Amino acid sequence: MSISWGILGAGKIAKKFAEDFKVVDNGKITAVASRSQDRSNKFADEFKIPEAYSSYEEMVKNPDIDVVYVATPHNFHLEHASLCLNNGKSVLCEKPVTVNSAEFELLQNLAKEKNLFFMEALWTYYLPAILQAMDWIKKGKIGDVKQVQVSFGYTGDMDKKMRLANPDLAGGALLDIGIYGIAIAELVFDEELEEIQSMAHFSDTGIDDYNSIQLKYKSGGMAQISSSFVSELKNEAVIYGTKGRIEIPQFWMAKKAFLITTDEKLEFINKMPQMGYNHEAFAVNELLKQGAIESSVVPLVKSKRILSIMDQVREQIGLKYPFEK
Amino acid sequence: MSISWGILGAGKIAKKFAEDFKVVDNGKITAVASRSQDRSNKFADEFKIPEAYSSYEEMVKNPDIDVVYVATPHNFHLEHASLCLNNGKSVLCEKPVTVNSAEFELLQNLAKEKNLFFMEALWTYYLPAILQAMDWIKKGKIGDVKQVQVSFGYTGDMDKKMRLANPDLAGGALLDIGIYGIAIAELVFDEELEEIQSMAHFSDTGIDDYNSIQLKYKSGGMAQISSSFVSELKNEAVIYGTKGRIEIPQFWMAKKAFLITTDEKLEFINKMPQMGYNHEAFAVNELLKQGAIESSVVPLVKSKRILSIMDQVREQIGLKYPFEK
Repeated sequence: MSISWGILGAGKIAKKFAEDFKVVDNGKITAVASRSQDRSNKFADEFKIPEAYSSYEEMVKNPDIDVVYVATPHNFHLEHASLCLNNGKSVLCEKPVTVNSAEFELLQNLAKEKNLFFMEALWTYYLPAILQAMDWIKKGKIGDVKQVQVSFGYTGDMDKKMRLANPDLAGGALLDIGIYGIAIAELVFDEELEEIQSMAHFSDTGIDDYNSIQLKYKSGGMAQISSSFVSELKNEAVIYGTKGRIEIPQFWMAKKAFLITTDEKLEFINKMPQMGYNHEAFAVNELLKQGAIESSVVPLVKSKRILSIMDQVREQIGLKYPFEK
Repeated sequence: MSISWGILGAGKIAKKFAEDFKVVDNGKITAVASRSQDRSNKFADEFKIPEAYSSYEEMVKNPDIDVVYVATPHNFHLEHASLCLNNGKSVLCEKPVTVNSAEFELLQNLAKEKNLFFMEALWTYYLPAILQAMDWIKKGKIGDVKQVQVSFGYTGDMDKKMRLANPDLAGGALLDIGIYGIAIAELVFDEELEEIQSMAHFSDTGIDDYNSIQLKYKSGGMAQISSSFVSELKNEAVIYGTKGRIEIPQFWMAKKAFLITTDEKLEFINKMPQMGYNHEAFAVNELLKQGAIESSVVPLVKSKRILSIMDQVREQIGLKYPFEK
C-alpha cells in the first residue's frame, strides 16, 4: 500500500513540502489543486505530479487520493480541511491548524465523526534535532528543566497586500511564527499552564508585528518567547535545566542541537539538505498504513492547547480578526 | 586634589572593587571598615589600605575620607548610606541601592539635604563595551530598537545560610541579578513604561530562585529578562533593532559587544584584565573633583525607576521581605 497525497494550495509552503517529499519513499504526491489552472499546471510540472486541478472540490473527489495536505492561508483551513474530511480524505493541515480553538473543535469533531486521520503540520516535532534535544532532556542530561527562552523573527514585508500583514488573512507574528516558540514550550513542559502573559505592538495594518509572551507551567517551568516581523532575531531556542542547557539554532527548522553542561558538550547535526517537511510526511504515511487516525507526536490535544494559548494571548493583546467579529 | 575613599564592608564585592581600584589613578582608598577588626586588617593588608576600622561609625568620622563605597548586603544600604551622608561623606552605594523605592526616597532626600554626592554602583553603565553598544544604537546602526532579550543566571548555593537565599537579607534573583537585565532595558529604552509582567518561582527559603519578566515601553519597545539561581543561563543581552542586533555576552560585566547587521559585523573587545569596577570609581573621582552631587550616567532618577520596577515585580509575584512586613 502506497499512500497517495493531494496538495491543496500551490503557494510557498506547498512548494517546500513537495520539494522535501522527493526523499519520502513511503508515499507519493498524486495531485495538486490551485484556484488557477495555470498555477496548478506549473506546480505539477515542477514536481512531476500526475494530476493538476483548478478546483479543490474536484481534487478531493478523486478516489485515488488518501490524504490531503492543506497548504492555504490559516483563515481558510477550517473550510478546506472540512472539504477534505467531508469527502473522505485524511488531512495534514498547515499550522496553525485553524485560527482559533473554536474552529479547531469543529474540525476535530468532524474528523472523529468521519473516523479519518487528522493532524496539524507541526513539522518541528518530527525534526531529528528536536527529537535529539527531547531525548537529552528525558535522559536527565540537563537536570530539571526550568526555563526556556526563544526568539523567532525576521524583517518581513509589512505591506497590507502581503498575507502576513493582512488581518483579513489572519496575519501577524503570533499565528505565523509565535506558534513555533509556544510549540517548543509545550513540547518541553507538556503540562498544565498556570499563567500566560503577553504584550504586542501593532502594525498600521492592524496585526501584531512583534510580540513578547511568557508562560508559566504548574510545576514552575517558564518560557519567554519573542516574535517579530520587524527585526531579525537570533532565532534560537535555549532550554535551561539545573545541570546545563540545550541550544537549538533556527529551532523551527532545526538541523542542529547543542548540549552544554559542566560535564559534557555534545552536538547533533542533521546534514540532510531538505528543509525537514519530509520527516512529518514520512510519519503520516506510516500512520496511515497502520490505520491510525491521530499522531502521538502531534496529538490533537496538543494542537488544541497551542490554539488555546494563542486565543488567550490574542485576548490579552486585543487582536481580533475582522472575520471573527 | 586626590579623592579619598572609605570602604564600608569587607565582603566579596568590596574585594573586587578594591582589586579593580588598583588601576584607578585619580583617587585612593584610605580606609576600610568591617564589623570584625580581624577581617578589616586582612582586607587592609591585602590591598595596602592605610586604615582598618572595626566600626563603620568610626570610619565615617575620619575627616580625611571624601566618599564611602557601601558594600554591605542590600538590606543594610539605607542604614549604612545614611550613616555616611549624616557624617558628611559622599556615597557610592552597591546595587540595588536600597531594597525598595520608599527606602531610596529617604536616602535621596538626605543626600540632597546634605548637598552630598550620591550614586548607585550600577557599574554596568560605565563599562566601555556597554558604552560602545549605546554608541552604535545612537548612530542608528541597528535602526529603531524594538526588543531586548536578556538572561542572567548561575547555579548558586540555595542554602538558607547564604545571603542570596535568605529573605532576611533581601535575597532572591530579582534584586541581586534581575536588576542588571532591568538596567539594560532602562538604558536602551530610557522612556516611560506601559506595562510590567512578571512570574517567579520561589525557593524553600522564600525567595525567588528564578523569574521571568517582560517590560513594554510607551513607544513600543519590549524587553524579556530571565534570571536564575538554579540554572546557568546564557548570560547574554541581545538588543534587536529594525536593521540588526547587538549581542553583549556576560553583559553585566561586559568586556565584549558585537554588532551584527546585514551590512556590517563589528566587534568591540576590552582587553583590560579588571572586572570593570574601575570605570565607575574613576568616574566618581572625576565627578567629586568637579563638585557634582549626582552622575548623569547613573542619575538618581534612573535608580529610582529601576527600584520602582522591582517594587512592582515584587508586588506581582508576591515577594515581601520579613523586615518589610
